[in-house]
Amino acid sequence: MTAQQKLKNKIENGLHLCVGLDTDITKIPKHLFSSDNPVTEFNKIIIENTYEHAAAYKINFAFYEKDGSKGLDNILETLTFFPSKDPLLIADAKRGDIGNTSQMYAKSVFEHFGFDAVTLHPYMGFDSLEPFLNYSDKINFILALTSNPGSNDFEKLKLEDGQYLYQKVIKSIKEWNKKNNCGIVFGATNLSELQSNIKDFGDMPVLLPGFGSQGGNLEEVVRTFYSNNNNNFIINVSRALIYCNGSPGFGKNVSDSIQQLNEEIKKII
Amino acid sequence: MTAQQKLKNKIENGLHLCVGLDTDITKIPKHLFSSDNPVTEFNKIIIENTYEHAAAYKINFAFYEKDGSKGLDNILETLTFFPSKDPLLIADAKRGDIGNTSQMYAKSVFEHFGFDAVTLHPYMGFDSLEPFLNYSDKINFILALTSNPGSNDFEKLKLEDGQYLYQKVIKSIKEWNKKNNCGIVFGATNLSELQSNIKDFGDMPVLLPGFGSQGGNLEEVVRTFYSNNNNNFIINVSRALIYCNGSPGFGKNVSDSIQQLNEEIKKII
Repeated sequence: MTAQQKLKNKIENGLHLCVGLDTDITKIPKHLFSSDNPVTEFNKIIIENTYEHAAAYKINFAFYEKDGSKGLDNILETLTFFPSKDPLLIADAKRGDIGNTSQMYAKSVFEHFGFDAVTLHPYMGFDSLEPFLNYSDKINFILALTSNPGSNDFEKLKLEDGQYLYQKVIKSIKEWNKKNNCGIVFGATNLSELQSNIKDFGDMPVLLPGFGSQGGNLEEVVRTFYSNNNNNFIINVSRALIYCNGSPGFGKNVSDSIQQLNEEIKKII
Repeated sequence: MTAQQKLKNKIENGLHLCVGLDTDITKIPKHLFSSDNPVTEFNKIIIENTYEHAAAYKINFAFYEKDGSKGLDNILETLTFFPSKDPLLIADAKRGDIGNTSQMYAKSVFEHFGFDAVTLHPYMGFDSLEPFLNYSDKINFILALTSNPGSNDFEKLKLEDGQYLYQKVIKSIKEWNKKNNCGIVFGATNLSELQSNIKDFGDMPVLLPGFGSQGGNLEEVVRTFYSNNNNNFIINVSRALIYCNGSPGFGKNVSDSIQQLNEEIKKII
């Protein structure tokens, strides 16, 4: 199944949550330390308890790379825990380099790991993204406006023609979306910018980080999309969900939490 | 020794070349395929034959990540081939993410791998770079103006105040350089921009990719720096150097090539 189909299926079933596997050994429940591999054991429990309620999973590469090759093995092992491949599996790797180098990064995330989607930096322009865009059955979520304070430093700079840099990035992504395989990263913390730019997203899927720990408002984001007749979005929840409870039975709490979030979303849509 | 001291020592000895280990299994000499690990065997020969003539080495992570954990093991093994740690070892990883994620990326390149320096994307702003900048004995080369055609798409956009985005990025990096551990990536293909912006680099080191395969002119770049009384730069050579010959005795050719490049540089400085 293509990445586009996977996402469509989930969204048609009212699922908009992306579970962020930002797995941090210092934050996982202490009782898991007795297992052979606490990181993948934790991921396994999170996946088992969210699988029916999530549209997507986002593996944050940084949290694995800090352990070198062992960490990359943990990514591969984690990918085996999905009973089938039907949720969208996103490599949150934020790559981007000159063409021949991006080609290697694309091979890594799409071929070696077999992810459905990736997150990318736009700074270096089209030819830095092109090798990823050549994979027509994948989704490339390109950073437009991020959820962090630093989004003010460059993303929100005003250009000579009056638009902001992130708006120019969105327009460029739309032009580069010839294979219908581009998406946008738009921080959930930027509600007013979301409201004023949502018409420019076209039919590109939007990945929204920044909910929970970073302060994004779930209800307002969902309302903004649906009131604009747009359901093509996924909201990432990482720390606020996966570390919601540290007891031996934490899986049940995580399951309850994601279902509660889904209920909140369903009330709006 | 700090990264700053390593670079200073090399530059004081007139060394300005950075050897880019963009090691591609499809391009390395065929006779190496009989060794246990052709990639690291190739790197070993390149390092042995360039070690006395290079200021720095730049490991392009993409070329290793495409092989997953095996690739990261190859990076670690490659780092053992340096008889001492005195050349600057750069992780060309082009990372950048929100704070807690960048913290993990910084741990990966500086602590797990033990690199002296890294390349970073500026798009997400200060807090995405800060965890790297907290390592005062490392050098953080932040993308300003890159060597690829896509540098026209965003980097060369004109801002409301008349300066180009990459110029604003350079000014911001200068402000953020409180610990004297920031550097700039400036593509060697942008000679006129180099000439008109070199005064703004201050005392930050500059990493120049884009020489050779991408068309940057070595002599003109070196002349521009020295005629501005600035010697704080390293020029990356990857494909044009490491694949200059595919015969069993290729190490000698690579050694001759880098020495010839050094001679060309010495004629100018």
